[in-house]
Amino acid sequence: MKKLRKTFNNELSKMHVRFAEMGMMVHEAIFRAVKAFVDHDKALAHNVIVRDQAINECENELEKMTLEVIALYQPVTADLRDVITILKASSDIERIGDHAVSMCNATIRMKGSQRIAEIEVEIAKMGDYTCSMVEHVLDAYVNRNLERAYQIAKDDRFLDAELRKIRQRCMTVMQAAPASVFSGSYYISVATYLERIGDYVTNVCEWIVFLQLGEIVELNPSSKNNL
Amino acid sequence: MKKLRKTFNNELSKMHVRFAEMGMMVHEAIFRAVKAFVDHDKALAHNVIVRDQAINECENELEKMTLEVIALYQPVTADLRDVITILKASSDIERIGDHAVSMCNATIRMKGSQRIAEIEVEIAKMGDYTCSMVEHVLDAYVNRNLERAYQIAKDDRFLDAELRKIRQRCMTVMQAAPASVFSGSYYISVATYLERIGDYVTNVCEWIVFLQLGEIVELNPSSKNNL
Repeated sequence: MKKLRKTFNNELSKMHVRFAEMGMMVHEAIFRAVKAFVDHDKALAHNVIVRDQAINECENELEKMTLEVIALYQPVTADLRDVITILKASSDIERIGDHAVSMCNATIRMKGSQRIAEIEVEIAKMGDYTCSMVEHVLDAYVNRNLERAYQIAKDDRFLDAELRKIRQRCMTVMQAAPASVFSGSYYISVATYLERIGDYVTNVCEWIVFLQLGEIVELNPSSKNNL
Repeated sequence: MKKLRKTFNNELSKMHVRFAEMGMMVHEAIFRAVKAFVDHDKALAHNVIVRDQAINECENELEKMTLEVIALYQPVTADLRDVITILKASSDIERIGDHAVSMCNATIRMKGSQRIAEIEVEIAKMGDYTCSMVEHVLDAYVNRNLERAYQIAKDDRFLDAELRKIRQRCMTVMQAAPASVFSGSYYISVATYLERIGDYVTNVCEWIVFLQLGEIVELNPSSKNNL
């Protein structure tokens, strides 16, 4: 029995390591997506898109590992919760990667269209903030830091406020200058992607609460589905 | 053993029923979200937003059921795959609901802004198509219809093409008429939500393949992360 326990713990550790690796890849993806947007760097944007495949494969691999671990070790209570949480949280992490890709697609398509420096500065700020949130939530997950999870979910409100502000400013600029419509509408999309990443981060915070307390909670529900 | 098998099958049936109910609620949500958008019906939009809570609760409930069923019956092979797939696919279904809510938020915020009838017609068409896709994929899931799943994933390309078209038309109109910027930028958002729902439908198609063949596949990868 002790041996089985040890082997299960080994397998679970492997899953945690894979999850952490996936998290680091996604953090890197969003970091680079923001950088590509700020620097108008299409090559970097393309690079993020190509690498997304590896993130998707991580999610698939975690799924296979989940099936194997459950079938072999038949975990219960906290162990089972641990395995299932990795499985579910990996969907949220993977979708953060998808949104980094969407940002990169926007960066590539904007081409030489008339840029609006002041709005790009705002988006860069929002991007840095989002990137930090992703980093912090991964750290909180690894360290099972409940208090930190609550705090990060609260931080998401900043992104909601930023999106509203950026949307408003884009509309004002687009109304005044037709030449800015192309870039302005992409700015709104990019800000929407960043705000949505905040929602996925909040989901991961909820998984941390679930792991620690065994309760399914909804953190920050009013901020979700913002525009 | 036979008795345990029977009880497991009962529990699994309950999960399938709950999943199907969740699917129906989400189908209704997207149907109503499209209708609210087309009819400029803010009360209906509000109603969809309020009801989303019940969809989220379904997902939480399925999660609890998964933990209980695995801990109690320790399923393996096809049974385990069945349980895990419900758990993962329910995330995709829940997110379709979130996007219906986002559409409704857009409908509410557009207020009396200058509408563009020809683009609204296009979005309505896209909305109807998306709604059908959701209905078809739920049906394919329940009936384990592999061929249908492949077909539905292919259908997603229509939404990608529609989004590109609508985005382009919105930009043209916004450039020509500053008064249309407000509604135009919301149209782009709404079309983006519909396109993203298509991606979630494709994910569910992938789960159907996984259930039937035990293989994790990526259907229609090039269409994902479109803008």
